[in-house]
Amino acid sequence: MTSSTATCAGLRFDRVSWLRGSNAFLNAALTSDAARILLLDRGHPLVHKSPARRKQVYFASWSDVRSTVLACVDRPEYGVFGPEPYNLRMREGSPQKVWLGSTQGLISPLLSLAFLGIEMREDGPSLPAEPGLHVPTGMPYFVLSLTARSQHRHAWTEACDVLDMRKALGSLAPQDTALVSMARSLIDWNERTRHCPSCGSKQYSALSGHKRVCGTALAKHAYPCSMLEIGGRAPPQECEAWSSLQNYTHPRTDPVVLVGVVCDDKILLARKRGWPKGLYSCIAGFVEQGESIEEATRREAMEETGLDVGHVSYQCSQPWPFPAQLMLGLLAFVKTPDAQVRLDLDNELEEAFFATKEQVKSMLCSQNDQQSHDVVRHGHPVTVPGPEALAHELLSRWAQSSHHVEVHSRL
Amino acid sequence: MTSSTATCAGLRFDRVSWLRGSNAFLNAALTSDAARILLLDRGHPLVHKSPARRKQVYFASWSDVRSTVLACVDRPEYGVFGPEPYNLRMREGSPQKVWLGSTQGLISPLLSLAFLGIEMREDGPSLPAEPGLHVPTGMPYFVLSLTARSQHRHAWTEACDVLDMRKALGSLAPQDTALVSMARSLIDWNERTRHCPSCGSKQYSALSGHKRVCGTALAKHAYPCSMLEIGGRAPPQECEAWSSLQNYTHPRTDPVVLVGVVCDDKILLARKRGWPKGLYSCIAGFVEQGESIEEATRREAMEETGLDVGHVSYQCSQPWPFPAQLMLGLLAFVKTPDAQVRLDLDNELEEAFFATKEQVKSMLCSQNDQQSHDVVRHGHPVTVPGPEALAHELLSRWAQSSHHVEVHSRL
Repeated sequence: MTSSTATCAGLRFDRVSWLRGSNAFLNAALTSDAARILLLDRGHPLVHKSPARRKQVYFASWSDVRSTVLACVDRPEYGVFGPEPYNLRMREGSPQKVWLGSTQGLISPLLSLAFLGIEMREDGPSLPAEPGLHVPTGMPYFVLSLTARSQHRHAWTEACDVLDMRKALGSLAPQDTALVSMARSLIDWNERTRHCPSCGSKQYSALSGHKRVCGTALAKHAYPCSMLEIGGRAPPQECEAWSSLQNYTHPRTDPVVLVGVVCDDKILLARKRGWPKGLYSCIAGFVEQGESIEEATRREAMEETGLDVGHVSYQCSQPWPFPAQLMLGLLAFVKTPDAQVRLDLDNELEEAFFATKEQVKSMLCSQNDQQSHDVVRHGHPVTVPGPEALAHELLSRWAQSSHHVEVHSRL
Repeated sequence: MTSSTATCAGLRFDRVSWLRGSNAFLNAALTSDAARILLLDRGHPLVHKSPARRKQVYFASWSDVRSTVLACVDRPEYGVFGPEPYNLRMREGSPQKVWLGSTQGLISPLLSLAFLGIEMREDGPSLPAEPGLHVPTGMPYFVLSLTARSQHRHAWTEACDVLDMRKALGSLAPQDTALVSMARSLIDWNERTRHCPSCGSKQYSALSGHKRVCGTALAKHAYPCSMLEIGGRAPPQECEAWSSLQNYTHPRTDPVVLVGVVCDDKILLARKRGWPKGLYSCIAGFVEQGESIEEATRREAMEETGLDVGHVSYQCSQPWPFPAQLMLGLLAFVKTPDAQVRLDLDNELEEAFFATKEQVKSMLCSQNDQQSHDVVRHGHPVTVPGPEALAHELLSRWAQSSHHVEVHSRL
């Protein structure tokens, strides 16, 4: 398994980030026959109804979602958005530069919609944009959230099921898993980031879901005053946005180190309180501010196991959409082979032990062929996370590595 | 240079994260003679006055900051905090478990204070905490922000200068640079994250500056009602915090890929519009949601240079406190050696060219010995970022690697 086929990674389309701010492109792409619009309901994808285990994502067309989208745009209080999904009438007298800076790819505040990218095809449709912008030919992908639009949800119940996102990891094709993961993280962040962290005013989605901007910045520089009333109060002028137009918030991507602690020819397996009986994995934790990933790895090893690790070796990475983590898989080599594990520092783990390569191989295989294996702890057969988790990949890489490589890595 | 000595990394103290929620420990540590309290003014550290180029961080003691801290705690409207910096009177009838969950390490909303860690020394002071918590002996480190306390700033003007943080990177000892970097990122995040992203209510600092919690959660579960009035309005019950006590916000750590694009035996150097004349560096960009770091690397290479890269090799990482980035240094190998660079996709770069190892070595050396070197573009000698930047380390690793290693890596 290479990094590009890791679960939740491997999107084959181009994100064409430079097009996220072109209203001309976005409107043309969304309303074109080529548009493929993924639907999420509370972060879970809509799929074609099917008794088969392998599910297929349902992609709506513009005609399917037109009334849902335009119902948000057309409401009189948001009339400033104009007749298209991505649009906004220019305030009289606003300098064009300021206006463009704050309103690129802006959507009605009632709409959770994002542009994801283009699946490039030479024979695909050619879409227009502003002069000077390069637009590849192909199928444009969007995501529309139905979470706040329960009245529209019924339209799809005939054709679709809502597939739980955790189950989607094992039952969608890898390419669709990657697509839904990206869309879910982006929509989740948009729907949970409604207010400016600086002043509490309403934020608006800009760059088609890839940034958010404080209403205060818009109020001062570009917006018709009526828009402000959405926040329910006058704009607080002490907000940072009042002095800086660029008070954007950008999506969260939280790095997490997943650490295989290696001692001689064994690797540490640990379990947290409350996990299913017999389940063990590598240790993990968020990278903190002011840390390299190697330092975060050593800190987590010390905090959770009391082990002092020296050399750290990066192995693999994977996005994880619960809600928006970047998993970084590393091997960390214990300095003194006779070191004792202690779990009483941060008290996160219930138990930990060192397993051999043969034992780990047996655990990894037993998931595939459903056979029982021979590692038992406290009366329960030991299992490790399945192929959808980076821990599986990290353990697999270690188990398949040569002893020579490990010894070399420790030096 | 190993990762642990990278600029802004290499903190030698223990973050002891499990102590961030112990009011008993935090109060004892902050008010002990051993406390070392870093002061930041708008994110810039206070240092001892000195004409020397090498500056020393000024560490205040509890007696220095006592009146500043207690002025925030003692205000009548915040009387619920009680007489100590970390404290809060329990609401009558609140179940203890709920109470503890939301008020661990809580500080008065007017105070920007955070616990950083313990510099462990066997002969250091021993500090108390709740039963069951492991407390290493040593010197506890805190950071206190003076940004909103201009009336207290004068107390230090006799002894201290405010050192611009950018200059601090080159003029503080590496250990102090790492300390200030962590403190700056943490305080910056606290001071710019004042409101709940879900409902706009005031947030409070919990776990001594390492989380923030929506006032709505506190209102429902634990807080005396008077606290709510700080937000200036009744708590909105539609906030996620109303149904979930764990509506914490955690600090941002934004991963950025820094990419050395390698083609045969050359590496790409590029410059953005507006950079100082002659300055070139590696390309860089934020990791997006739903991407592995290898995918982010390939996307950035394509977006900024139009080059299709295959194999990607992680090299090194470094935190960067402007404001809270995690820099990830990678080499990326171009698939077809005769590929043409194009800069017109996202239009971020002004110019780019491939440099040889000898040229890069010359650029890296010229910064150290201040000698001129012989690479000139458009009439200006080419320079690369200094040792404080991860680009310097990445270029240096590549320039010192053997041709054999690169060829091998590309396969």
